[in-house]
Amino acid sequence: MNKSYPYQSLYSFTKKVFQHIGCTEKNAALATKVLLAADVRGIDSHGVARLSGYVRLWESGRINSTPSIIITHETPSTAVVDGDAGLGLIVAPFAMQVAINKAKNVGTGWVSVSNSNHFGIAGYHAMMALAHDMIGIAMTNASALVAPTFSIERMLGTNPMAVAIPAGNQPPFVADFATTTAANGKLEILQRKNEDAPIGWVQDKDGMETTNANALKIGGALLPLGSDKEHGSHKGYALGSIVDIFSAVLSGASYGPWAPPFPAYVPMPENMPGKGLGHFFGAMRIDAFRKADEFKHHMDNWIERFRNATPAEGHDKVLIPGDPEREMEAIRMNEGIPVVESVVDDLNALADKFNIDLFKT
Amino acid sequence: MNKSYPYQSLYSFTKKVFQHIGCTEKNAALATKVLLAADVRGIDSHGVARLSGYVRLWESGRINSTPSIIITHETPSTAVVDGDAGLGLIVAPFAMQVAINKAKNVGTGWVSVSNSNHFGIAGYHAMMALAHDMIGIAMTNASALVAPTFSIERMLGTNPMAVAIPAGNQPPFVADFATTTAANGKLEILQRKNEDAPIGWVQDKDGMETTNANALKIGGALLPLGSDKEHGSHKGYALGSIVDIFSAVLSGASYGPWAPPFPAYVPMPENMPGKGLGHFFGAMRIDAFRKADEFKHHMDNWIERFRNATPAEGHDKVLIPGDPEREMEAIRMNEGIPVVESVVDDLNALADKFNIDLFKT
Repeated sequence: MNKSYPYQSLYSFTKKVFQHIGCTEKNAALATKVLLAADVRGIDSHGVARLSGYVRLWESGRINSTPSIIITHETPSTAVVDGDAGLGLIVAPFAMQVAINKAKNVGTGWVSVSNSNHFGIAGYHAMMALAHDMIGIAMTNASALVAPTFSIERMLGTNPMAVAIPAGNQPPFVADFATTTAANGKLEILQRKNEDAPIGWVQDKDGMETTNANALKIGGALLPLGSDKEHGSHKGYALGSIVDIFSAVLSGASYGPWAPPFPAYVPMPENMPGKGLGHFFGAMRIDAFRKADEFKHHMDNWIERFRNATPAEGHDKVLIPGDPEREMEAIRMNEGIPVVESVVDDLNALADKFNIDLFKT
Repeated sequence: MNKSYPYQSLYSFTKKVFQHIGCTEKNAALATKVLLAADVRGIDSHGVARLSGYVRLWESGRINSTPSIIITHETPSTAVVDGDAGLGLIVAPFAMQVAINKAKNVGTGWVSVSNSNHFGIAGYHAMMALAHDMIGIAMTNASALVAPTFSIERMLGTNPMAVAIPAGNQPPFVADFATTTAANGKLEILQRKNEDAPIGWVQDKDGMETTNANALKIGGALLPLGSDKEHGSHKGYALGSIVDIFSAVLSGASYGPWAPPFPAYVPMPENMPGKGLGHFFGAMRIDAFRKADEFKHHMDNWIERFRNATPAEGHDKVLIPGDPEREMEAIRMNEGIPVVESVVDDLNALADKFNIDLFKT
């Protein structure tokens, strides 16, 4: 049975855990805010469910809790950031801020990041641009779970990308999605319930279609957006590849099948061609193209027109990217955040380990 | 029966047609080169097959063959270009060159374009960056044929995007794809052959799945990449939307369902919120991030590793985006470009109209 916790309870607990692994108070607060943005927006796989995973990475020496994050190379509109093996939850907001600062100066800013770790949800970082009347872009590579079209080998991560675009009276347009047909988190939910996956989400070890939600544990792979060649999986494979190259080849991080795995028990790949995970961020000042008010007026018009597109039978309305997450946020900030039992157990184990009281039952 | 023509024959003929509608010799040459890049690379729907369509747009007064293409707003890393209703085949290379010039100065360049028309294949423009050791990006909005997830209304074009990334010894990575499950051109091929479409390419007028390749002619719509919600169509819908917003809302072109239709006989939408079609271009100098040689060495490694990924049974090898088009180019430049009979008829009609001899039979 799921329990629900107020945001503030999860916040205090999570922040203490980050402090216990050596983060400064300020960094612990930032990492917590970024991590919990996933739970708040309904992307349960990327929030507190991963907290013990981050701790295990720290225990295995793969995360530096006091990183010196630095810019190693830059031009007026670009920078490369070395995350010094820090939490992606801290490295990413630093790098996105660099992109925003460059956009203030020359119209746009583009930052590629090496030597980082998982950064939570891409949407958080992209949305940092909104308050500055900028379009924000965020992407990251990740542990290889995805087979390219025509292959049985896992070569790419779920490599998400997010694009946040400000509007006027309407809430912003916020797209945030894995470049696979289904995110791994959705598969994990089916595994817990012992249910089948739809055809097109995963393939088995021989590259054949399967409904086995556990296929990845026996040599299978996630499929790129499009599922198969006939339905455009080569496009999803291209998108995931672009995210990998922008995030890791451009920055000097480790790419493709060499991306460092998130589970600490999985050995690091041999002959890694770069350092850590990679991210890529962009910020474009609206008024570098067009008066911000004018743009926002047209974005409102765009959003209203799409929201009022004729729905298909059985559907109330057409959604704008970001609608479901924003609606979830309103509910969860009010009613609390549900946490599944296995994650509550995880958090209790962390409470024991660090002698923090909150999740004791 | 298809006939094959040497590139040079199609080139001379097409250039004369563009000159007959009023293009200068230089612009006619450029428009021809861009248009035929589609035929050469095997994207038959976007090449000479569209030549008579461009002529009809010119006849209906929607294309200005002597445009004054101007930059209306700029910052060090951005520009907005007004295409003055010119051929997209001419406007787009102008705008991409602006992006490249800005990248030379400040690391990256980003250009949004209004008041344009169809620009041929996105890949041509993205690939302009390669010779400068830059990554090139190109996208465009287009006539509304695509229904958002949960809708029966056509709100977006097939809105393609292209990303070209230089390598060293390996040929470049060139992704160029519509943000739909299948491009409209593929559907037209099935229509000609009177064959069914796979489930997931189109929906009927009620939003139900169908194999009718003619569904679009009776109120149906193309589907975003992903085909249905369960397979991630909301991601394809988001991608198509991002292309629309970057290309048209940012520049002041006409967006969403108001994008001007390519067929000249289709009336222009009422209350258009902007001018003409929109495009978006980006250029990122590799050495604004990392030494170009170092990057290319790692791109070679990336490409070799992916090309050698274990293939699934029944497949020889894993493809790198751009491989099929490059292989097609090698064949067609050598053996000629096949043109289907209906297009040959079209070209002969143009030959008659303008009193050009080449395609007389």
